[in-house]
Amino acid sequence: MIVTPQKARFTEPLRLTGGAVLPEFEIAYETYGELNAARSNAVLVCHALNASHHVAGTYADAPDNLGWWDNMVGPGKPLDTNRFFVVGNNYIGSCFGSTGPTSPNPATGKPWGADFPVVTVEDWVAAQARLADHLGIERFAAVMGGSLGAMQALQWTLSYPGRVRHAIVIAATPRLSAQNIAFNEVARQAIMTDPDFHGGHYYEKGVVPVRGLRIARMIGHITYLSDDAMMEKFGRVLRRVTPGFDFDVDFEIESYLRHQGDKFSSYFDANTYLRITKALDYYDPAADFGGDLSKAFARAQADFLVVSFTSDWRFSSARSRDIVRALLDNRRILSYLEIDAPQGHDAFLLDDPRYFAALRAYFGNIAL
Amino acid sequence: MIVTPQKARFTEPLRLTGGAVLPEFEIAYETYGELNAARSNAVLVCHALNASHHVAGTYADAPDNLGWWDNMVGPGKPLDTNRFFVVGNNYIGSCFGSTGPTSPNPATGKPWGADFPVVTVEDWVAAQARLADHLGIERFAAVMGGSLGAMQALQWTLSYPGRVRHAIVIAATPRLSAQNIAFNEVARQAIMTDPDFHGGHYYEKGVVPVRGLRIARMIGHITYLSDDAMMEKFGRVLRRVTPGFDFDVDFEIESYLRHQGDKFSSYFDANTYLRITKALDYYDPAADFGGDLSKAFARAQADFLVVSFTSDWRFSSARSRDIVRALLDNRRILSYLEIDAPQGHDAFLLDDPRYFAALRAYFGNIAL
Repeated sequence: MIVTPQKARFTEPLRLTGGAVLPEFEIAYETYGELNAARSNAVLVCHALNASHHVAGTYADAPDNLGWWDNMVGPGKPLDTNRFFVVGNNYIGSCFGSTGPTSPNPATGKPWGADFPVVTVEDWVAAQARLADHLGIERFAAVMGGSLGAMQALQWTLSYPGRVRHAIVIAATPRLSAQNIAFNEVARQAIMTDPDFHGGHYYEKGVVPVRGLRIARMIGHITYLSDDAMMEKFGRVLRRVTPGFDFDVDFEIESYLRHQGDKFSSYFDANTYLRITKALDYYDPAADFGGDLSKAFARAQADFLVVSFTSDWRFSSARSRDIVRALLDNRRILSYLEIDAPQGHDAFLLDDPRYFAALRAYFGNIAL
Repeated sequence: MIVTPQKARFTEPLRLTGGAVLPEFEIAYETYGELNAARSNAVLVCHALNASHHVAGTYADAPDNLGWWDNMVGPGKPLDTNRFFVVGNNYIGSCFGSTGPTSPNPATGKPWGADFPVVTVEDWVAAQARLADHLGIERFAAVMGGSLGAMQALQWTLSYPGRVRHAIVIAATPRLSAQNIAFNEVARQAIMTDPDFHGGHYYEKGVVPVRGLRIARMIGHITYLSDDAMMEKFGRVLRRVTPGFDFDVDFEIESYLRHQGDKFSSYFDANTYLRITKALDYYDPAADFGGDLSKAFARAQADFLVVSFTSDWRFSSARSRDIVRALLDNRRILSYLEIDAPQGHDAFLLDDPRYFAALRAYFGNIAL
């Protein structure tokens, strides 16, 4: 499936949760399949931390560049693009084409950099609603995401209850725990204390806070995998014949983490990383309801599919059950799957047959 | 209880596991209670990452400087110094008085710094055996430790089976998992990529890799607490009236971590941190036995008390059960306690009444 990324430009200012105003913005997106005449078959796919609008397929000029959820989305796949019109989008504040810290600030003509405001999950959803308007989609058949993407799916049911029929909420939490925030804060501190960060104004210095980004990514990777999965994959296997008694790579896991850190720091924007982790930290739909998630979801109208993975310790199944309880309190129509998968948080990207069969069945039952 | 730290100097070279030789070394230590005439009541206490030989009591000139395990060790306490002669010691390679990277290298007269060799748990125990000789202790009534200290207690039963009657092994693992190594590697990378690290030769530059040490400590702290304990202690409580939509401290947990990181980086030596984490990574008594822990413990002669804590995800109870199984395979006399405590790895330092009652009973049953 060959796809072409597109951009939509929005010139009406967007007032953000934090009070700042984006005078104008762009959203990078891709679509797969055809919007039907009734405009009833659109599915919005929301991405997590380091992914993008490139959900499925490849590009004509880059046949190896496969979308990040290509196993899930495409012709004949669980989210079948022969039946659904799927929209991938890059949220604002990211660094893959939508307006973010690397974009030009209209007030100065130079990149926003440190001056780009902190955006929230609610802001992402508000911007996505503009994209829906642009595409002529009044109501999505479904909004779907994993991890941070799942927060967007949840928020759609709260910001625009009438515009989403099904929310598909995978490997989610309704709000970060103190431990989740703690990991984010360490990553932010690693970036912000890197001497090449320059208070976020590193573009004009011609440098990148590579050291901080490496550390941030290494920490992230540890939380994406379960202890058991990491032991299964890397064990205590040495990269050398014997221990080196120095500080070069001894164990496979060290080599893997350094490689992941190096790769990430070569393409990801540090100002974006800071803002995404803040959006995660802040997200709490129950905050305006005295912490009561059931009250927060009283205005939701969608049906829900909630999926969690037993070995996910980043956003554990207990957090998905918090969501399920709040939805049951509101008598929402609901399916909940707790998949016994060993891979940790990353399981949501892998094609466990039970997980994929359930998604296929769920989408198959959505009337168009 | 007023105590006085002491030092013992050893001029016979110590050949280390990694092949290097320490031409001479010192061990900082403290003692509490009196060695009995039969020299049968000595207990060696081993410390974890950032503690020291100052296990109990205070100093005459620093009445607020309470030993790190003062709730456990002292007159009338679970390890009762009216009955036992307790020895606290700082392992070599540390930075609290025993020979380590901050000590003068006899070959140059300048601090060892980056040239200080990587030491292992086995090396620590070999150096502690010299201290036992120095104190006239042929055989310890017990060797005791938590976390990294527990690895030393385990290793005593393997390096000197005839010199330890009881090993008290708390919050332990017989070897690090890939995830444990991963966290250590991120901490090391944070330190080593700090521009103020200078390849470990920062003393002569008059700087300290404060940024890296901060990050290392913040990561460590997250792994010492359980997710639940952190949520209980900090929750999602803000330090400000409303979210700041910037990168100053929003949540209590951020403030706590920054404070812990700042404090640690003001007193802990970076070269020491690197070496301790390597000692942790390398430790694996089963490595010479094809990974078979039961074979590794065949030469142990001690009785064992093994204690783990249900909410410890750094060194989970499953790892203590690995030790217990290996000991049972060898028909060692053994007690195992799995304490249902919420505080995570840090629980070993806290005075849970069941934990302390069990330790008191165990020590009470040791014949002198």
